[in-house]
Amino acid sequence: MHNPQLTKEGKLKHLLSIEGLPKSILNQILDTAESFVGVAEREVKKVPLMRGKTVCNIFFENSTRTRTTFEIAAKRLSADVINLNVNTSSQSKGETILDTINNLTAMHADMFVIRHAQSGAAHLIAKHVAPHVHVVNAGDGRHSHPTQGLLDVFTIRHYKPDMHNLRVAIVGDVLHSRVARSEIHALTTLGVPEVRVIAPKTLLPEHVEKLGVHVYHDMCEGLRDVDVVMMLRLQSERMTGAMLPSSQEFFKTYGLTQEKLDLAKPDAIVMHPGPMNRGVEIDSAVADGNQSVILPQVTYGIAVRMAVMSILAGNSE
Amino acid sequence: MHNPQLTKEGKLKHLLSIEGLPKSILNQILDTAESFVGVAEREVKKVPLMRGKTVCNIFFENSTRTRTTFEIAAKRLSADVINLNVNTSSQSKGETILDTINNLTAMHADMFVIRHAQSGAAHLIAKHVAPHVHVVNAGDGRHSHPTQGLLDVFTIRHYKPDMHNLRVAIVGDVLHSRVARSEIHALTTLGVPEVRVIAPKTLLPEHVEKLGVHVYHDMCEGLRDVDVVMMLRLQSERMTGAMLPSSQEFFKTYGLTQEKLDLAKPDAIVMHPGPMNRGVEIDSAVADGNQSVILPQVTYGIAVRMAVMSILAGNSE
Amino acid sequence: MHNPQLTKEGKLKHLLSIEGLPKSILNQILDTAESFVGVAEREVKKVPLMRGKTVCNIFFENSTRTRTTFEIAAKRLSADVINLNVNTSSQSKGETILDTINNLTAMHADMFVIRHAQSGAAHLIAKHVAPHVHVVNAGDGRHSHPTQGLLDVFTIRHYKPDMHNLRVAIVGDVLHSRVARSEIHALTTLGVPEVRVIAPKTLLPEHVEKLGVHVYHDMCEGLRDVDVVMMLRLQSERMTGAMLPSSQEFFKTYGLTQEKLDLAKPDAIVMHPGPMNRGVEIDSAVADGNQSVILPQVTYGIAVRMAVMSILAGNSE
Repeated sequence: MHNPQLTKEGKLKHLLSIEGLPKSILNQILDTAESFVGVAEREVKKVPLMRGKTVCNIFFENSTRTRTTFEIAAKRLSADVINLNVNTSSQSKGETILDTINNLTAMHADMFVIRHAQSGAAHLIAKHVAPHVHVVNAGDGRHSHPTQGLLDVFTIRHYKPDMHNLRVAIVGDVLHSRVARSEIHALTTLGVPEVRVIAPKTLLPEHVEKLGVHVYHDMCEGLRDVDVVMMLRLQSERMTGAMLPSSQEFFKTYGLTQEKLDLAKPDAIVMHPGPMNRGVEIDSAVADGNQSVILPQVTYGIAVRMAVMSILAGNSE
Repeated sequence: MHNPQLTKEGKLKHLLSIEGLPKSILNQILDTAESFVGVAEREVKKVPLMRGKTVCNIFFENSTRTRTTFEIAAKRLSADVINLNVNTSSQSKGETILDTINNLTAMHADMFVIRHAQSGAAHLIAKHVAPHVHVVNAGDGRHSHPTQGLLDVFTIRHYKPDMHNLRVAIVGDVLHSRVARSEIHALTTLGVPEVRVIAPKTLLPEHVEKLGVHVYHDMCEGLRDVDVVMMLRLQSERMTGAMLPSSQEFFKTYGLTQEKLDLAKPDAIVMHPGPMNRGVEIDSAVADGNQSVILPQVTYGIAVRMAVMSILAGNSE
Repeated sequence: MHNPQLTKEGKLKHLLSIEGLPKSILNQILDTAESFVGVAEREVKKVPLMRGKTVCNIFFENSTRTRTTFEIAAKRLSADVINLNVNTSSQSKGETILDTINNLTAMHADMFVIRHAQSGAAHLIAKHVAPHVHVVNAGDGRHSHPTQGLLDVFTIRHYKPDMHNLRVAIVGDVLHSRVARSEIHALTTLGVPEVRVIAPKTLLPEHVEKLGVHVYHDMCEGLRDVDVVMMLRLQSERMTGAMLPSSQEFFKTYGLTQEKLDLAKPDAIVMHPGPMNRGVEIDSAVADGNQSVILPQVTYGIAVRMAVMSILAGNSE
């Protein structure tokens, strides 16, 4: 089966999910991102790589936070950015998603950044677009959010460059997480020897151990001697019903406190994709503490998105 | 009476409606648009014609689709674009439209792109603005939507350059269409010898034949040997009440199928202003078929809007 | 106590309120604004002072009008502008304001323009941000709206350069005005010898005379021989309850008519911060009359905002 993310020559054409990306492309993205970290610190934070290109942020569900990161990244590449909230638009006039995409393509849009509540939306669009158009998945349902996964891996590599010698723990709602699965895949591909998931059974996908991870239900056991602690966001909408007792209860068992963190290696880093529920999955003191790299993740997120967009724009057929 | 769209020297000052535009200006817009078609295909899709100019998209009713076309066109001309949804703004604080316009003019806005639910809104604003400011009507009530009319004419001229030898059929809800009337006017002005309208009596304006068109109620008769089939959008809000039986019924009688299309000339082109109601006024197979020029219409829409804006900006007093 | 608006060297770091700004900085802003008035009249209305900088307009309450002025000013300085309506965003996901600010700072935003319904919001954010980031208060509750105050003072200085010889009357709802207090402060600092406030007791703060103003309850008395009449907007939401009888009644007593204006000096200027309630606090004939400088205020507002932003951007540590 042809990989829908790659050109026939094996170059990156769309970014839909981390699954299916060969190690060489993962490294190309991470290395390119490294070169963009410096751009943000310059007096003039712009490079002309996408001058005259049109990037459309098409958000079928609202996410100011994610939209902002892509808008900043595209503008730093000198692209023109068009923001479209499609729920308020011609969707209501009965136009299909694909007609919307066709129209924007006819306007010579070069790249679509897609956010959609339904899994597979970005794949569907990528399958459909004209050859010169690139699609970036900015989150589809609970399926994938690849730039988040990439920035997490970038951050780990930045602080712990020897990836062949790491223990990474992913903690919390793995079941509903858009990123956990991709991260496990990326970490494995890049040679991380031990990935652990720590969660109650109700928040783990079935057969999760088949992904090559070690499963822990006890957080203290799971954190022991790890180099990286990746906390996941607890979606408050998951809290209703029988799945979880209460957010206080969750914090007691799976919330990251300094006490629990002290079980990890002394130089372990703490990560969170944001937005945080302080006092639910993470204690404020830890979130703002000196082991936290949560804000650097955001910074590297811009560099990673610049890398993805500029690589895609350079791979036009 | 002085033509409010023209300067004293007869140059285009505002674009409010196609009615009242002399043939020379219609041709100036179409010829200028021709020169912009190539810009969209360049590596860097930008020309500096409006650098440092401020274009305000003032949308008193929401239309992401139309706003996007003007935003892309203005950015390709290197203008700065400000989007204002005025329904959510100081309208609610009791400020009048004209105070809003005065304020933006005082901020040295150069051009207003106006969308308003009320007929005549753009005319009212144009009458009021300072001499250096230009107004483009992006749709007012059911009155006018001149850039849509122009892009339709551009598309026809592109595919059928010998306009003195054409038969054009306009099909559907002529009564409520913002564009049908302007198109009839434009086609006549540009020398098209035969324009037909095909619709039930309930969807035709009274005395429509006075516009110089041939009226058909039977679609098969009306399509016979035409070169161009322009389908109109059926506003679903018109479907309620006694005007129309049902959308299935409408499709049977006035929906464009390949079977009906085969009555036109073999090289006839099919047009639609979008967004389409697939299965109501047009069959999907025809919309996506090889006689359809619906997506090229969208492409040429950008070039036409760039032409209009750059001509207006060049005609400042 | 250290002044939170100034760097250790006494340069402007944030613009939070006019109170606390020394005369030298007030004059620096006004003089810089003078140099930007001409930019808006050029063919290319742009200067490259903030090229490659990212300005975030963070509006926790909607104000298209104010957002537009900052967006235009920033774009004329060549900055990249990101608009965020935070009420529709991750606020609803339980993220705190400061986490939002931290995230945007991590994305290397250079300047935050903040609008918030709560007094002190901009101060709180300024206290919190990283050293290289600048904060501009675009209105917080009824506390402060310093760029409005500055553009008012700029306008007065423009039309009446000899400020040591002026009588200024501020008329209307002083109690709920975001700007009246700051203006009194600015005018006094810049050497205006006589500032009057004209209002019913119910619309005056207690002990207002301690600010160094003369209080009038009778408008005819208060307007006698003044050089400047600054009308304030009457918030219609204040009209409910016992505070005021009715808007017609208010207009009769405190609305500005030509008849009342004739009591002022013959060359007196009329100002209003907008949006106006025509027929409530000001008669249309006066608002549009030849003593009105209400639209020049808007024009100078862009120049003043460009001045503030470019001065802040130049004072990075």
